[in-house]
Amino acid sequence: MSGSVYGNLFKIATWGESHGKGIGVVVDGCPAGLTLTEEMIQVYLNRRRPGQSKYATPRRESDTVEILSGIFEQKTTGTPISMVVMNTNQQSADYSDISTYYRPGHADYTYDEKYGFRDYRGGGRSSGRETIGRVAGGAVAMAILQQLGIHVCAYTKSIGDISIDYKNCNKENILLSPLAMPDLQASKAAQALLDDKIKELDSVGGIIECIVSGMPTGIGEPVFEKLDANLAKAILSIGAVKGIEFGSGFQAAKMTGYQNNDKFQYNGCEKVTKLTNHAGGILGGISDGSEIILRASIKPTASIAQTQDTINKSGENIKVNIKGRHDPIIVPRAVVVVEAMTAVTIVDLLFMSMCCKMDNIIKFFQPIASCPHDKDMNC
Amino acid sequence: MSGSVYGNLFKIATWGESHGKGIGVVVDGCPAGLTLTEEMIQVYLNRRRPGQSKYATPRRESDTVEILSGIFEQKTTGTPISMVVMNTNQQSADYSDISTYYRPGHADYTYDEKYGFRDYRGGGRSSGRETIGRVAGGAVAMAILQQLGIHVCAYTKSIGDISIDYKNCNKENILLSPLAMPDLQASKAAQALLDDKIKELDSVGGIIECIVSGMPTGIGEPVFEKLDANLAKAILSIGAVKGIEFGSGFQAAKMTGYQNNDKFQYNGCEKVTKLTNHAGGILGGISDGSEIILRASIKPTASIAQTQDTINKSGENIKVNIKGRHDPIIVPRAVVVVEAMTAVTIVDLLFMSMCCKMDNIIKFFQPIASCPHDKDMNC
Amino acid sequence: MSGSVYGNLFKIATWGESHGKGIGVVVDGCPAGLTLTEEMIQVYLNRRRPGQSKYATPRRESDTVEILSGIFEQKTTGTPISMVVMNTNQQSADYSDISTYYRPGHADYTYDEKYGFRDYRGGGRSSGRETIGRVAGGAVAMAILQQLGIHVCAYTKSIGDISIDYKNCNKENILLSPLAMPDLQASKAAQALLDDKIKELDSVGGIIECIVSGMPTGIGEPVFEKLDANLAKAILSIGAVKGIEFGSGFQAAKMTGYQNNDKFQYNGCEKVTKLTNHAGGILGGISDGSEIILRASIKPTASIAQTQDTINKSGENIKVNIKGRHDPIIVPRAVVVVEAMTAVTIVDLLFMSMCCKMDNIIKFFQPIASCPHDKDMNC
Amino acid sequence: MSGSVYGNLFKIATWGESHGKGIGVVVDGCPAGLTLTEEMIQVYLNRRRPGQSKYATPRRESDTVEILSGIFEQKTTGTPISMVVMNTNQQSADYSDISTYYRPGHADYTYDEKYGFRDYRGGGRSSGRETIGRVAGGAVAMAILQQLGIHVCAYTKSIGDISIDYKNCNKENILLSPLAMPDLQASKAAQALLDDKIKELDSVGGIIECIVSGMPTGIGEPVFEKLDANLAKAILSIGAVKGIEFGSGFQAAKMTGYQNNDKFQYNGCEKVTKLTNHAGGILGGISDGSEIILRASIKPTASIAQTQDTINKSGENIKVNIKGRHDPIIVPRAVVVVEAMTAVTIVDLLFMSMCCKMDNIIKFFQPIASCPHDKDMNC
Repeated sequence: MSGSVYGNLFKIATWGESHGKGIGVVVDGCPAGLTLTEEMIQVYLNRRRPGQSKYATPRRESDTVEILSGIFEQKTTGTPISMVVMNTNQQSADYSDISTYYRPGHADYTYDEKYGFRDYRGGGRSSGRETIGRVAGGAVAMAILQQLGIHVCAYTKSIGDISIDYKNCNKENILLSPLAMPDLQASKAAQALLDDKIKELDSVGGIIECIVSGMPTGIGEPVFEKLDANLAKAILSIGAVKGIEFGSGFQAAKMTGYQNNDKFQYNGCEKVTKLTNHAGGILGGISDGSEIILRASIKPTASIAQTQDTINKSGENIKVNIKGRHDPIIVPRAVVVVEAMTAVTIVDLLFMSMCCKMDNIIKFFQPIASCPHDKDMNC
Repeated sequence: MSGSVYGNLFKIATWGESHGKGIGVVVDGCPAGLTLTEEMIQVYLNRRRPGQSKYATPRRESDTVEILSGIFEQKTTGTPISMVVMNTNQQSADYSDISTYYRPGHADYTYDEKYGFRDYRGGGRSSGRETIGRVAGGAVAMAILQQLGIHVCAYTKSIGDISIDYKNCNKENILLSPLAMPDLQASKAAQALLDDKIKELDSVGGIIECIVSGMPTGIGEPVFEKLDANLAKAILSIGAVKGIEFGSGFQAAKMTGYQNNDKFQYNGCEKVTKLTNHAGGILGGISDGSEIILRASIKPTASIAQTQDTINKSGENIKVNIKGRHDPIIVPRAVVVVEAMTAVTIVDLLFMSMCCKMDNIIKFFQPIASCPHDKDMNC
Repeated sequence: MSGSVYGNLFKIATWGESHGKGIGVVVDGCPAGLTLTEEMIQVYLNRRRPGQSKYATPRRESDTVEILSGIFEQKTTGTPISMVVMNTNQQSADYSDISTYYRPGHADYTYDEKYGFRDYRGGGRSSGRETIGRVAGGAVAMAILQQLGIHVCAYTKSIGDISIDYKNCNKENILLSPLAMPDLQASKAAQALLDDKIKELDSVGGIIECIVSGMPTGIGEPVFEKLDANLAKAILSIGAVKGIEFGSGFQAAKMTGYQNNDKFQYNGCEKVTKLTNHAGGILGGISDGSEIILRASIKPTASIAQTQDTINKSGENIKVNIKGRHDPIIVPRAVVVVEAMTAVTIVDLLFMSMCCKMDNIIKFFQPIASCPHDKDMNC
Repeated sequence: MSGSVYGNLFKIATWGESHGKGIGVVVDGCPAGLTLTEEMIQVYLNRRRPGQSKYATPRRESDTVEILSGIFEQKTTGTPISMVVMNTNQQSADYSDISTYYRPGHADYTYDEKYGFRDYRGGGRSSGRETIGRVAGGAVAMAILQQLGIHVCAYTKSIGDISIDYKNCNKENILLSPLAMPDLQASKAAQALLDDKIKELDSVGGIIECIVSGMPTGIGEPVFEKLDANLAKAILSIGAVKGIEFGSGFQAAKMTGYQNNDKFQYNGCEKVTKLTNHAGGILGGISDGSEIILRASIKPTASIAQTQDTINKSGENIKVNIKGRHDPIIVPRAVVVVEAMTAVTIVDLLFMSMCCKMDNIIKFFQPIASCPHDKDMNC
C-alpha cells in the first residue's frame, strides 16, 4: 500500500530509485507566501551529496534540484511544490550480480518477499539516495520554521566508541568537520578510526543528536499524535536507524524519579524554565518550551567489501564480495536527513496544534469572517 | 486536533479520564467472524489493573469491561466494537491542590499551555488510566494475531540496574513475577530495590522488551510506513516511554558492519534463516521472518512523595509534596500496554500489506468476483 | 477496514447497532474551552427521535444522551468526548425471519456478501439508528460553528411531487411542521400524500435542502479536499441519499455560461457580493462568502409492508411481507442528520484552512512563542 | 493544508499549474508486478488533450507523459510511480490582465481570499490542465481494474437540452463522436448547438454518465467510507462538477418505495440478480454486483468572451472581456477525467475491502507465513 507519503497537513510524497531517471518529492500543504528558491533547497542537498570526502561514496552526482510547480514570483502559492533531482552517474552494471543473491544487512530479501521481485540496481528504492526527496522536502519545512524562530540542528555525536559532548548546536561549527562532528579533535580521531576500517574493508556506526530550539509550548497531540511519538516514526523511517531516545532516554531506565524529574522554576519576570531537561523538551507528548533533544542510533553501513556468507535465489549458501560504491559510514551524510525529517514533523504538528483552543479559533476567524474592506462602514 | 485515534485499516479510538465517568475504546476495522468475548478482553485488562501488589497504586478498580457493540452471537460483525470500563474508585479530593501548581515530570504544565486549562483530577487524560483503552483495543488485535499464529510477548527486562537476559519469551513464566520479570531471582532483587525506593519516597525506571514471533515476511510499507517506524510511534505514544530500539539498537552505533550484518543461510529444506538477529527482524522497514525484537525505556514514575521544587500558577516558586495513590514503578503494569500497542500496529500493517502484489490481488478477487453458485452453469 | 471514523482534525467515530446495547460516538479534536452540556446535544437528538408523529416509526426510544468524557466544569478540555445513547425498546423478535432472506432496497444482501453474516436485528449497523452517533457528533460541531457566527439550517424541500421554494432558512419555522417543511400549506398537502401512501402500504422519497450562512471565505482545500467534494462525501454517507447538488446543480447542465456565471459586485463600502448564487457559495472548491446551498435526494423508505419479490439464503425466489416498525418517509428525520454531517465537515475544513497562509501562521505563533509573562522584561 | 493527495491505500499526489513548467502525479500504492508503459498512460491523456476539435481550446499541447520511477523491466515494483507532462505552449501574456480582476464563475477571487495572492496565468492550479495528473493516475488504476475484469466507461449523456439514453457503455462507440456522445445523431445536434453558442460567445453545460461493470460484491466500507460517498467526493473534486447522483438519483425523491426497490431474483444456477437497478449497484454503501451507475452535472465553461460585469482588486465594479483560449464546453474532455477519478476510487476501496473477513485474512497469510521452500520437509 501507499507508504511514500508522510504528514497530515504538511505532506511530503517522495519517489525515485537509485538508478532510475531521478528522485523527487511533492510537498503538499506548504502555506502561501513563503519565499522559496532552488538555491534554498540546494544548500541542504549539498550537505548530503556524495563524493565530498573519502568517507563518502565516490559516486559523482551534483544532485541539482529543479522546482517544477507551486512557486510564483519566488513565493509559494499554497499549491503543491514538485521538486526533481535527475540521476546522472548511474553505473548499473556494477550491480548486475546482486540481482541473484541477498546482501546481508540489506533489504534485498525483504523486498523480494514483499513485492515478488525488485529493482536491484544500486538498491533501487531502498538506496540511501531515496533520502534526497526527504531532504528537499525538509528544506521547505526548514524555511517555514525559520520564519517562526525555530531552529533544527543535528550533528554527529558519536562514531564507534568516539563520542562528544556538545552544547549549543551551531551549524557552522558542524560544517567544519567532514564527519559533521563539531569537536574537531574528536573528529580527527574518528577519521583515523574510519581510515582503519576502510583498510579492513569494514564500516562503522554512530549516533546523531538533533536539537530543536525556539519551540513554542503546546505542540503535540495526545494521546497518539504526541510530539515524541511522531518524531520517533519520522526518524525510524530513515534507513539504518535502529533506535531513538529523547532527553534522558535509555538512561532514564536507571534513574530515580527524583533524579529524572525536571524542576520547574520562574526566572526573573516569571518566565517558566526547567532547571534540567531530562524530558528532552516534551512532557506528556507536548512541547514544554525547552529544547527538543533526540538521539538516533545509526547502524554501520551494510555494504562492506570483505567476503560474507549469504544465500542466492537458487537456494544455495554462498560467499559474496559486494561491489559498487559505498560509504564506510552513513552517519555524517544522514545528519541532514535527520534534520529534514525532524523539520517536516514539527511543521506538521505546529499546524495541527492551531485548532486546539476555542479562543484561538474565534480570534483567528474574526478577521477572515468580516470583510477586509469593512473598516470604513460610514463611507 | 484529533489525536486519540490510531491506525489506518485497523483503528482504535480511545477516550476517558482518570476521574471521569469511565474509560473506553472504539475498535473500528476488526474483520468479521472473529470469536470475541468480554472474558478475552478482561484477561489483558487484569494484567494492567492496579492494586495487585505493593508495587502498584493502591487505587481499587476492578476494571471490568463491557462490550456495547460490534458482536453478534459471540462473533465480530465487521462493525465498530465499543468497549467501556467505568471508573468506580475516584478520590478526586486528593487532587484538588494540584489544580494550582505544576507537578515536575508531569504533563500539567503542557496541558495548561496547550488547552488553556485542564481536568487536574488524577492527571485527567494524561493519567496512566488512559492506557485501559489501548489494552482493550490491543486485546482484540491479539485475538486476530492468534488466529494467524503470531505471538506478541513483552516482559520487564530491567529495573534500575537489575537487568536480565531472557530468551523464548513465555507469558506464563512472566506472570509468576509481580514485576513481570521472568528471572525470579532477579525479580526478588528488583523487589528489594523497590522496597528501598518506596521507603525513600522515590521511584525507579526500567526497560521492557517485546518479542513478536511467527511474523510473516513482507510486513511494513517503505519508505515512511516501515514496520519499525510505526512500532516506534506506537510505543513512544505510551506515557513515560523515553526511547525505543530494535535488535542491536543503540549498540549498533558501536559495531562494525561485519559484526552487525546478519548472515543469511538456508537450513535444510531451503528455509531462509539468519544466523544472528541484530536487525531485530526488520530489514529496510519490512519483516524478514525472524522475531521482531524491540526494547522501550520507561522513565521512573514522576509522582513521588518527597518534597520537590516547582512553580504554581500564581507565578511563584514553591515546594510541594504530591498526594494521591501512585506506583513506585510503572514498568510492570506497562508491559501489557507495550504488547497492546505492538499488536494493534502489527495487525494494521498486516492488513496494509495485503495489496502489495498484483498476483495476490488477482487471486483474492477471483472467488469474490465470480458468483459462488456459478459452479454448475450447465444445470 | 475501518469505515466508522470521519474527519481529519475534527473526527467523529460512531458505533452501535439498532438492537445492540446502545449507540454512540467519540468526538475527537474538539477544541478546549467550549461550553458543552448534555442538554445541548439532546436538542438535536430529539429532532431525529422516533415516535413523534404518525409519519415516523412507532418504536419508543427517549434517545437520552450521556456524556462520559472530555468535559470538565461544563467545558470541553480538548480530549475525546464520548457520548452514549442506550437502546431501550428493542423488539428483536420482530426481525427473526429477516435473517433468512434479503429485503429489497436494503443492505442485507451486501452485508452478507461483505462480512459473511450479519446482525439482522432491525438492520443492525445499517439501520437508521446508526445516525444517532452522527447527530450527537454534529451537535458538538454546531456548538463550535455558533461561536463563529456560522449557521447550518436544513429543511424538507420536497416530498414526492410536492416541492417548496423557501428562502432565509429559519429553524423555528421548520419545527412547526411535523415534516420539517416550513411552508405549512405544502406540509399539509404532503401529510395527505403520506396518509395515502401509508394506506397503500407504500412509502415516499423527497429532497432536503441545507443552507449554511455566515461562512468565511477561503474554506476548502484544492484540489481533492474541496468544500463541495467533502460535503458530497459526508451527505452521501448517510443511508438513503442517492444524489447531491450544489447551487444550480443539475440545472447547470442546461444553462449557458452567461446564465450560470454569478456576477461579482462591490456593495457600498467595497464589500464583495455576488448578484446571484448559482455557485452555491463555492468557487474552485473554496467558500466565496455567500451561502452554501446543497440539496440531497432521499429515496423512499425501503421497508414497506406490501408483498414484494425477493430471494432467501437457500437459493429460492420468494415473496415477503416485511414486519417491524418503519417510517413511511425518511426525509423529515433525516433533516437533522444532513445538518449534522454538514456541520462536522465544515468544522473540519475550517480547522484545516488555518494553516494556508504564511502570514497567518507567523501571527498565530507570535503570542504563543513568546512567554506570556515577558511583557515586563526590565523588571 | 495538504489537499492534492487523494486515496488511502492507492494514492495519487498531483501537482502543477497551467502555465508552470509542467503537470504531474505521483502514484503511491500501486501493487508490484503490473505491466505498465508510457503508451498505456498516453492513451488516456490523448482523450483529454486539447485542440482535437473546434469544441476544445486551441491551446496546442502534445501532453506527452514521461514515467520517472516505479517501473523496472516494464513492470511496477510497488514503489511510487512519478509521471510528468511538461507544458510547452504557455502563452502567459494572454492572462496578464486577469491578474487585476476576478473572473465570474472562476476561482480567482476565492484563491486570493484563501492564499493572499495567486498564480493567475491561465488559472494556475485551478485550470483544467490540473486534471492531467488525475488522468495519468487514473490510467494506472484502469490497468489494475482491467486485470480484475472491471470496466469503467463514461460518456456524454447530455449537452444543454440534448440528452441520450445509452446502454452497454462501449468505449469505441464513444470515441466516434467529437463530443464523446455515442448517439451520433444526437452528437450532431449537440455540435450544432455548440456552433451557435460559439457564435454567441457563450458556453454550455451537460451531464456525464459513468458505468462500472464487472464489480465484485462487498466493496465499500460503512458507514463513512461507503462506495457512493467516496465516488461522490472523487467526482465533486473535479472542477465544474455541480452535482452527482447514483441510480435513480434525484428521481428517487419522487418515487415510492415499491417503485424504487429493486427486486432480487436468482437466475438459473442461483446467481443473484436484481430485476432493476435503481440502486445504481450500491446498497448500504456496498457494491451489490450490479453495474455502478453515476451521473455528474457539469456547469457551462465559466470563461466566455462576451462582456461581463465583475470587480477588480482596486475595489471597482468593472466590465470585462476575457481573453485566452477556452473550451465552449467542458463535458467531452471531462469524460476521461470522470473515468479516472472513478477508477482511482474503486481501486482504493477494492484494496480496503480485502481485510473485512477473518476467513479471508487467515487464508491470505497462510501461504506467506509458511516458507515457500517448505514443501519438501523430509529431504
